Amino acid sequence: MSKRFADFLLASKNQVDRQLADFATDQATTAAGTGEALDTISQACSYVLTNGGKRIRPTLVYAAAQALGHKGHGADLDHVACALEMIHTYSLVHDDLPAMDDDDLRRGRPSCHKAFNEATAILAGDALQAWAFELLADAPGFNAVQRVALIKSLAKAAGLQGMVGGQAMDIAATNTDVNLQQLQSMHAFKTGAIIRAALTMGGIAANASAEQLSALDTYGSHIGLAFQVVDDILDVEGNAETLGKTQGKDSKANKPTYVSLMGLDGAKKESQRLLQAALEALGEFGVSADSLRGLAHYIIARDR
Amino acid sequence: MSKRFADFLLASKNQVDRQLADFATDQATTAAGTGEALDTISQACSYVLTNGGKRIRPTLVYAAAQALGHKGHGADLDHVACALEMIHTYSLVHDDLPAMDDDDLRRGRPSCHKAFNEATAILAGDALQAWAFELLADAPGFNAVQRVALIKSLAKAAGLQGMVGGQAMDIAATNTDVNLQQLQSMHAFKTGAIIRAALTMGGIAANASAEQLSALDTYGSHIGLAFQVVDDILDVEGNAETLGKTQGKDSKANKPTYVSLMGLDGAKKESQRLLQAALEALGEFGVSADSLRGLAHYIIARDR
Repeated sequence: MSKRFADFLLASKNQVDRQLADFATDQATTAAGTGEALDTISQACSYVLTNGGKRIRPTLVYAAAQALGHKGHGADLDHVACALEMIHTYSLVHDDLPAMDDDDLRRGRPSCHKAFNEATAILAGDALQAWAFELLADAPGFNAVQRVALIKSLAKAAGLQGMVGGQAMDIAATNTDVNLQQLQSMHAFKTGAIIRAALTMGGIAANASAEQLSALDTYGSHIGLAFQVVDDILDVEGNAETLGKTQGKDSKANKPTYVSLMGLDGAKKESQRLLQAALEALGEFGVSADSLRGLAHYIIARDR
Repeated sequence: MSKRFADFLLASKNQVDRQLADFATDQATTAAGTGEALDTISQACSYVLTNGGKRIRPTLVYAAAQALGHKGHGADLDHVACALEMIHTYSLVHDDLPAMDDDDLRRGRPSCHKAFNEATAILAGDALQAWAFELLADAPGFNAVQRVALIKSLAKAAGLQGMVGGQAMDIAATNTDVNLQQLQSMHAFKTGAIIRAALTMGGIAANASAEQLSALDTYGSHIGLAFQVVDDILDVEGNAETLGKTQGKDSKANKPTYVSLMGLDGAKKESQRLLQAALEALGEFGVSADSLRGLAHYIIARDR
């Protein structure tokens, strides 16, 4: 990893971490004035928003905007970056519920319904989704046409034909025989849609042309799949402490994975193929897209 | 109830019922092409969207727009009306979950998690929330500034400082001593925020002035509370068959109600006081606001 990319990665994470913490503090202040019940949901939102995630989706926003010559970490991108992370975070909170994946641990800490309770986790997730759209409707630095485009992109990616549909496919696939095409489709919905939305939204924020949006989308669909292939490899090869979650969990839960369908070597080759395809999609962009290139490499090489 | 208002009420319900059914059919067609898992969530969305609700919130949109001289049932209002009903519907689906109010019956039919399962109910609710914002971002007949204002209004009302916060207060209040002020605050959040949003959104759609929006909002806060007072009265006096839910449920669940705090007569007087206050707020509007006036009377006089 180049020093320059390492700095970009850290600056992106720090910026979104700081901004999410600020939003959570604002919310907590308002909630505390309204009573104990809101205070609890607000604490749960803060707990899950400030849990040390990798912040891949916000980082993609910053990198996509940078690729188009936009100041990479402009404050105008904060609402966009945080809205994406709020949608991602709410999906983790709901996915961890007993009726869904029933996961007690998330990034090395008790998941939301264990740290609080199920009702609080359901409501905190619901509040985070509404909050994401409120942030975009309020996003400073963008005109109404951009705000509407940002909201439309995120709403479509978060809904049934995106993240929610992917989670439904994931649950339905447990303990069943799934082929590679079905697995890819599931991931394209479950994680791919929001990753592609992050790139589109970074593009919208930086006034991308239709061609540039299309290139960002192609890049996004490849790194989205690569991200999941690497997740499956880490589930077999990773270190539980580094991962912050139970290693081998997916194979134990009889969930189909790239490794179970392609073998470990096959999955590693597939991740390399996807990396190359992602880099090729950036062909028309100059050095301004180096952060996107760095991110593609980083997604393949990560250990958690 | 005047013939004119009865026609308005029926036309509003028919229009939103038909439009919701159309949206559900579109979604089902797309989902069916994507596979079984999406198809299930789509069926759950359709199940809860076409369940014969009273459609008060959409009707408020049509009535508020009509009060401002807008064609009362213009097709441009359909996305607004349906977005509100989708948010309301998702909240019922999540509220009925075992970890929340644990209600097996909704409008005389098995609630979503009983008709399907818990995971499906959680995901269908999540999908409905995203869908509501997608509909507003796509709303034909409005410019981007109006769409952003519509989205902002709904997102704020649906979030922690609105509907979600109210549900949290409601759960926290079970089996505890709450005073009248706390009960009113809970309802102002839980149902009042979305009812006020419906009026604001009808106003935005019809280019209301700030003063007109303020009058609609005052009207909304009074009928929102009245709606809840009447719900509590019906919980004691109502007929289970007409209500489509277990009568006496709230008092049995040790939930504080207006009746338990004010007595049955006190609650009835309060509902009349709120009706008068709602009508007064409409003082500046002429006969174009007669549907809003009719709605205030209807909310008080309803038997379900």
